[in-house]
This record gives sequence, C-alpha cells and structure tokens, in this order.
Amino acid sequence: MAEPARKLEPGPPRLVTYDTHPARYRHWKLSFDGTTATLAMDVNEDGGLVPGYKLKLNSYDLGVDIELHDALQRIRFEHPEVRVVVLTSAKERVFCSGANIFMLGQSTHAWKVNFCKFTNETRNGVEDSSRHSGLKFVAACNGTTAGGGYELALACDEILLVDDRSSAVSLPEVPLLGVLPGTGGLTRITDKRRVRRDYADVFCTLVEGVRAPRAKEWRLVDDHAKPQQFADLVRRRVEALAATSDRPAGTQGVALPPLARTIDDAGYHYPTVDVRVDRAARHATITVKAPAAGEPADVDAIVAKGAAWWPLAMARDLDDAILMLRTNDLEIGTWILKTAGEAKHVLACDEALERHAANWFVRETTGMLRRTLARLDVTSRSLYALVEPGSCFAGTLAELAFAADRTYLAALPDAQEREPRITLSSANFGRYPMVNGKSRLAARFYDEEAPLASARAAIGRPLDADGAVALGLVTSAPDDLDWDEEIRLALEERASLSPDALTGMEANLRFGPGETMETRVFARLSAWQNWIFIRPNATGETGALKVFGSGNKAKFNRERV
Amino acid sequence: MAEPARKLEPGPPRLVTYDTHPARYRHWKLSFDGTTATLAMDVNEDGGLVPGYKLKLNSYDLGVDIELHDALQRIRFEHPEVRVVVLTSAKERVFCSGANIFMLGQSTHAWKVNFCKFTNETRNGVEDSSRHSGLKFVAACNGTTAGGGYELALACDEILLVDDRSSAVSLPEVPLLGVLPGTGGLTRITDKRRVRRDYADVFCTLVEGVRAPRAKEWRLVDDHAKPQQFADLVRRRVEALAATSDRPAGTQGVALPPLARTIDDAGYHYPTVDVRVDRAARHATITVKAPAAGEPADVDAIVAKGAAWWPLAMARDLDDAILMLRTNDLEIGTWILKTAGEAKHVLACDEALERHAANWFVRETTGMLRRTLARLDVTSRSLYALVEPGSCFAGTLAELAFAADRTYLAALPDAQEREPRITLSSANFGRYPMVNGKSRLAARFYDEEAPLASARAAIGRPLDADGAVALGLVTSAPDDLDWDEEIRLALEERASLSPDALTGMEANLRFGPGETMETRVFARLSAWQNWIFIRPNATGETGALKVFGSGNKAKFNRERV
Repeated sequence: MAEPARKLEPGPPRLVTYDTHPARYRHWKLSFDGTTATLAMDVNEDGGLVPGYKLKLNSYDLGVDIELHDALQRIRFEHPEVRVVVLTSAKERVFCSGANIFMLGQSTHAWKVNFCKFTNETRNGVEDSSRHSGLKFVAACNGTTAGGGYELALACDEILLVDDRSSAVSLPEVPLLGVLPGTGGLTRITDKRRVRRDYADVFCTLVEGVRAPRAKEWRLVDDHAKPQQFADLVRRRVEALAATSDRPAGTQGVALPPLARTIDDAGYHYPTVDVRVDRAARHATITVKAPAAGEPADVDAIVAKGAAWWPLAMARDLDDAILMLRTNDLEIGTWILKTAGEAKHVLACDEALERHAANWFVRETTGMLRRTLARLDVTSRSLYALVEPGSCFAGTLAELAFAADRTYLAALPDAQEREPRITLSSANFGRYPMVNGKSRLAARFYDEEAPLASARAAIGRPLDADGAVALGLVTSAPDDLDWDEEIRLALEERASLSPDALTGMEANLRFGPGETMETRVFARLSAWQNWIFIRPNATGETGALKVFGSGNKAKFNRERV
Repeated sequence: MAEPARKLEPGPPRLVTYDTHPARYRHWKLSFDGTTATLAMDVNEDGGLVPGYKLKLNSYDLGVDIELHDALQRIRFEHPEVRVVVLTSAKERVFCSGANIFMLGQSTHAWKVNFCKFTNETRNGVEDSSRHSGLKFVAACNGTTAGGGYELALACDEILLVDDRSSAVSLPEVPLLGVLPGTGGLTRITDKRRVRRDYADVFCTLVEGVRAPRAKEWRLVDDHAKPQQFADLVRRRVEALAATSDRPAGTQGVALPPLARTIDDAGYHYPTVDVRVDRAARHATITVKAPAAGEPADVDAIVAKGAAWWPLAMARDLDDAILMLRTNDLEIGTWILKTAGEAKHVLACDEALERHAANWFVRETTGMLRRTLARLDVTSRSLYALVEPGSCFAGTLAELAFAADRTYLAALPDAQEREPRITLSSANFGRYPMVNGKSRLAARFYDEEAPLASARAAIGRPLDADGAVALGLVTSAPDDLDWDEEIRLALEERASLSPDALTGMEANLRFGPGETMETRVFARLSAWQNWIFIRPNATGETGALKVFGSGNKAKFNRERV
C-alpha cells in the first residue's frame, strides 16, 4: 500500500495508496460460508503502514482500515450472495483494541484527522450498506473491545459480547489518552444506541469499560453469551439478520480488478478521471469523463460489463482520486471539478441506473456513487465546479456541481450552441443523498417547494447560462470574455485564505439545517476532536497522548475552556 | 463591571462581574417611545473592559455585551409595554464592526471562548424572547454592519440596511482574520436566513461584504431604503412587528434591583444560591435554596413581590453564579449541584408558574429560568448533582439533576423518612426546553414513550432511591454508608481527567440526536472556531489574527486538515 516517494514532493515520505487485494491482506482473514462472510481481524503487529510502532493487540492504523474498506467493497460486488458479515477477531481474548496509540502519538495533526475521516467513512459505509443494500453486520466481540474497536462494533447492526467475566466494551480515550473516541463513538452511543446520557458519561470515563450483563442493561451491546454458547448466539443472530436481507441468491459476483491508475508529476490519471495538480497555484483539476457511446442499457449486459460499466468505473476512479489527493496532497487546497464529454451518454447511464434500480449490481453501483459523492461533501478542500464548453454536467455528473462550494458557468455571447449546458435528471432528486439525508438540490434550496418544483420541471432540458441562473443552479455565469480572468482571480483569492478558516467555514455551510448521526459525527464530534488533538493537554510534551506508555503521568493545564 | 483583584487568586488580574445598570452604561443608549425601545450602540472607545485596545468603530468586547444583556433584561421585566426593540447605532456610517480584533488578538484562548459563549447566549436570548415572549427585534443597520455586528443583526427578527451605496453587511472573519464568524453567523445565514450555500460561500470570503440591493436578493437582509427613507422603513417594520406582539398594555414593570451578592474567599453568596469553591479539589458546590413558606400564589401578589419572588430571585442568582464561575474560576472543573429546603415550597411556586403562565411577569420569569437552565447545559464544566438528605430536587429544581452529567442519590437503609426524594412536576415536561428544543427528560429518554409515561405518572409523588432508580432519574444511588467515599472518588477521578477531553465529551453527550440552530451554533460552529482559535494560522506569531493591523501579512501553513 505504499509506493516509493514521489520525486520533488516534500512532506509525506511515501505516497499512500488505497488499493489492495485479499491475497495481500496482512491484517484480516476474509472467509465465506454460504450467505455469511466472516471478517476476522488478525493484525500483524509488524505490518504498520509507517515505521515507528507495533500494532499490538489488534490495534489498527490506516493500513488496517484500507484492508477493511477493500474487503467491504469485495463483499458488496464480488459476493452478492452474502447477507450477513460477521466482524470478529482471530486472536485470543481481544476483539480489537482500537487505533494504535503510538501511531497517533507520532502522527502529524493532518495525518490523525485524515485517518479519522477515512475510518469514519468506512464505518458509515457499513451502515449505508445495511440501510440500502440488505447487507447486515454483526460484531462478534469475542474479547476486549476497546476504543476504536468498540466504535467499529457500533457501526454494525448488532453487537454481541462474550461473557467471560473479563471481556468488556470500553471507550477509554478520555481517561487514558485525554482525547475523544473520534470515530463516531460518542455520537453512536447516543444517537444510535440511545444509551442514557449519564450512563454514557460514566462509560466514557471508565478505563476498564463495562462487561457483559451491565453492557446489555445500558444498551451498549445487544446480547451476550458465555464462551461455550457464544458461537451459537452469533449463529442465531446471523440467521435472524439473514432472513431480513434481500441480497440475491444464485448470482455471480462482479470482480473488481485493480484500478488502471498512473501517477506522474502532473497528477493521477485514470480511464474515467484525470487529476492534474498545479502545485504553484495549490489547486488540482479533477476532470470526470463521460462514457463513450455504447454503454449497455440491458441489465444482463450491464452486469456482464461489470467493473468496466462506466458508472462503476467512474465511481471507483473518482473515489480513489479523492482519497489520493486528500492523503498525499495536503497543500492542494482547492479542487476544480470539471467534466468532459457528451451529456447524452451520461444521461443514458442515469436512465439505466434508474430503470434497473432493483438489480443487485445496479443497486451496489448506485451505492458506490452515493458514498463517493458523500466523500466529496466532507472533504476539507474548497470545491469549485467549472462548467465550460465541452463539459457534461448532466444527471449524476451534475451532482459534482451541486457538491461544489461554488459553480461557475461560462456564458457565451448570444447563447451559442457551444455554450455549456447543465441537464438535470431524476438522479438529482434523491438518488444520492448527502450525509444529512437530503439530496444536494433539496439542501441547496432548504427544501423549499418552489425552486425544487422549477428544477424538477426542467428534468431532461439542457439549461444554458440564463436557464441555470434562473433556476439557481450556478453561482455565477461570467461572460466568456471575462472567464479566464474571473476564474483566475477566484482561485487566487481562495488560495490566499487561511486553510483552517476555510475548512471550518465549509464544514458549517455545506450541510445546512437538519443534522443526522453522520453529520454529527463529521462536524460536532470531529470538530471537537480536532480541537483536542492540538491542545497541549493531549499532544504537548506532557500531554496524555504523548506520554502514554512512557510510565510518566500526563500534566494538564487545568483551565476549562 | 470590574472589581479589584481577589486575593490569593492567580489568573485573571481582575474579577469580572456581570452587573450593571442603564445609569452606568458606557456603550449603549437605551430609550423608550411607547411600545418601542431603541438600543443605540455608541461604544466608548476608551471603555474597554481590559486595558490594551481601543473600541473603535462600534466594535465590542465583553463589557459592551454585558450592557446589552442588562438592557435586554430590563426591557423584559421593567418595560412590559415594549413590543419591539430597535437595535441601531448612534454613530455615523457604522452600525457595528463586530468583536474588537485587538481584544481578540491579545486574549487568552479561554477568554475568547468564554466571550463567544456569552455573546452567543445573549443572541439566543433575543430569539428566545421573540419566540416565547412576544418581544420582537429589528436591526436598523444604519451603516457598516460587519462581523459580530452582522451576527447581532442576524439574531433579530428583521434586518434593515441603509442603501447609501457604501454600507454593507459582511462577515469578513475568514478573509481578514483567518477565523470564523463565531457568534452564530455561519449557522444563522443557513439555518435562519436560508442563504443559498454558494452565495454564503462568496459572502463569507468577501472582506467588503454585500450592499443593499444584492444583500436582499441573497436574503442577507430583509429590506433596505435610501438614507432619507430609512427611518420611515424602520418605523413601518416596527409597527408591523408590534402588531404581532402580545406584550401587555397599560402594565407597570417590575424593577430589577442589584443582586445581593457577597464575594469572599470561600465563593459567591446570594440569598437563594450559595457557591463554595474548593480550589484544592478544583470543584465548586452550588447550593440552590428552596423558598421559605409564604411565596404568593395570587398573581397580583406575585407581580407585587416582583424581583423578590423566589422563582425570579433564584433564576437571577443562579444565572449570575454560573457566569461568575465560568469567567473567573477556570480551573474549577466540576460543579456540584445541590439543593436545600422544602420541596413543597418549590412545588408551590411551580404550581403558580403553571397556573399564571399567561401573565406577562410569570411568562418572563419562566423565560429567565429557561435561559438560565440552558446556560447550564452549555457550560464547559462537569456537572454532578448530589441528592442528599435535606435536599429538594422537585419540579423546577429537579431540572438541575437532569441537566447534570451524573446524579447521585444517597440511599438510606430501610428507606427512612429522611432519605432524599426527587419529585417531578409538570415543569419537567416541557416548560424549560434545552437548546435542542426538548425537555431534559425527553432528551434523557430519547423521546421514548414508555419511560416518559412512567415519569409523567409519577408527577407529585416524592420518589425515594428505589423509585428514582426505577424511573431512570438518577445515575446511581449509593448506600448512605458508602456515600462519602463514593462521592469523593467520583470527584477525584473527574478532577484527574483532561479538562479538554471532558469539554469535548460533555458537548457530545449532553444533547443527543436532533439538532437545532442553537445546538449547531454551540457545537458545530463553536467547536470549529475553538479549533481555529488555537491553530498557528490564526493565533501563531504570523497568524492572521495576530498580525492584523500591524501592516504585516499573515503567513500560513498551507496544509489542509
């Protein structure tokens, strides 16, 4: 998962990539039995992504999570017969002890924050698949389940804990490390598990956590069993959950081959996505290419085309591009979103996604697109969409414009034929909800009926500058003559601003009113965690995270802020 | 507003108090005309609360906001005839230019955060009075309305901007200072004003802001007028809003005399509240005393008793105690909430608050209690309620137990007569919503019907340890014999934890799912602001906030986090 350093680039010593394959897993054992997949965590303590720490006791770093993410993708696409995924441990007495503390202690602030965001997205992805794709998850906690380990369990539909008088679930971050359980724990115990707030308060300050009977009483787990009965309990719950799943039977999966990505000094290049990085200007241009003619409309042909079907190929390329840029290009603060190609081919794919929505593979592809677009929404980079001649912001690709902080459309004199158009499709009205549960257009218009009705009435009609402005779909439509200058100024101005202030501003403006568990994880919880991560009480020389394991006690500035 | 330094205390050089009186205002002109009150900002630039900065251009510091808070309280209680408050400026060409930047630049992190919290609460209080008490607010922006100045306007029901080709509304914090508009601006432009997110993005990066016609088009203001017509526009809008108000006519107000507070080394002492600070243990014990017998039940007698009526006297004392501790006692990380006296007298007052809810004075008193309890919810201190013999956690005072992070009840053997009781009243089921819009019990039980119905069925019945535990009202009911040891350990353990981690944890656990504009201000926005406030890009030696006004340009670390 790590390649040699890219030349000319300061900063991270190695380029991090997110691709792997079960044959190369070092930390998980993935096995299949009928409609059940078992993901057994078995972290190789010498297999850290970065030197400097040992991954003891099934603790994890980004590399472990990259494998988890890969395994989930393969279960979704390559194993449509799977109805229930059992997350468990292949080690004795420990399920998972959470994010590796020494890794956190030695990591930069940016690394910690990016790591937490990716793990959050993966856990949201577990719930997304349960909600939308009939893939159910059981955490079979067969040993100590601490910190991020318990947060992983919290993402599952059910949490089962072995009652061996020693195994406990715990969130020891506050008492042990002076930081928060930053991967959704504080939000899921309230919003999802509905643990009473005073019990939650006690639980989150107990280093040793809570063992089986009380853990169930407090709603921290769903059920428990003695060691001899534990496998039987898991089996029964798996059967019950499998019965609620509508994943298909007797169906072949679709293989996910490695991405055809090349990396050079200019950026990252994929068949459907091109990323060009301008380091001097500190922005990257992400161009998503429409399919060529001839994408299949027939569902069998779509499944046969598999990972080469444009909607899935594009989602995979774009998802990877987002992750690569986020992890490896921290100083590239603005992403310019462009599209290229013919809108009608995008809309034909949209039509196929709509018509065959009930097909498992189409459903999974829609899910991948939904999660990829949601990843864009929570990315701490400024997003500017540029709608230029030759572009194809139509349907699914128009979501890029609506995900952007600003969208500029190049208006040509006399509305010439080559003036770029935006075309709406039904895909823009609910197929790809943001993490706040709303479509990007509904969020844009605060659920107001008038602008949404006008937009809906325009489905299928290519909208020129006047039309797009009238419907409120673009921020500004500068005249062609002013375009270069206007865009240059807008980008320069953005690049001159404080990156931190922009991150905070965008996190506040992108979602609007109406929060969900997911938005609360990404903003309320993560924002507090980010704050704590740079407070001396956590990461200063005598901070709790820094001194952990050294035998020294943390020294705190006692002021409450 | 500042008294000489308290002896023996390190830290802030002077003790900050929150009491003032219109006769002593240095920054506001408060005038009355029929049903309209006008609060004209006229900041004395040499009147800063702390030395080191000049309050130019109607910029403000905590001292200015303390006067605003006092003025609002007096309008609520002393001027029941007022239906509309006009917030405007007594200076030429500037309405308000926001929080003073040099004050922010020189302040400690804790001071900045506490200052923002209080200003947020005051602005929420404006909206609270509009929503609950028929008191409407018009921002008559007769000049530049920048940053915190615009955020103050955003708290009003309507924003009117003079169209003189120069006055603009703006939130220049991001481009100018590298921080966020931290007093609700980013949340109110989306949640309340429903400014389209891309316009909001442009607006929040424009130092010069947006002038009248476009400001209305983008929903940043409600209306505008040329200078000659501005007074007329304001008058018309005031009349229209006055017509929607149900504030009483022909009624005498209730005077708010100075609090009878004494301060000594032991703490703060009020007629109805006593605060004892244990500096070694780093906790404070706040004891709220029940009224004596004989509080009036008749509404005329209640109004006649005025500020001496226990519910209002207690609310004012408790509110002040909260503010004093928050501002002056940063290292006191745990507040122990106790009550003393007879529950029946508390419940008699609850009954009067319920029966006379339609009376303006009772309504205002309820509002004051609601805002005071809400202040407790967002206080960054651990709150432990101790229900001991002689206590009176009944009705309104039981809210203290439900606001607490944990509640311990001392169980006596054989449930003796002196075993403490908790008694619910209708006050616990909606009279005092938290900032998330839910009663504390509804939030505690996640709106689940069964526990809420059980609790409702127990109204009026004094609940002993078994009863309170069964209904889920207390965290733990240790035996009398273990009480001292258990409480000592719980307090010591809390005091040993990282203050920052506790602040973040409590901010996540206290509210649960379901966010409102107010909770989003306090958590999403404030958490991001807190983060940015300690990032070098804002407050480092070359940070934007630090170099402002020096002629130097900020130097940023360009990494996006």
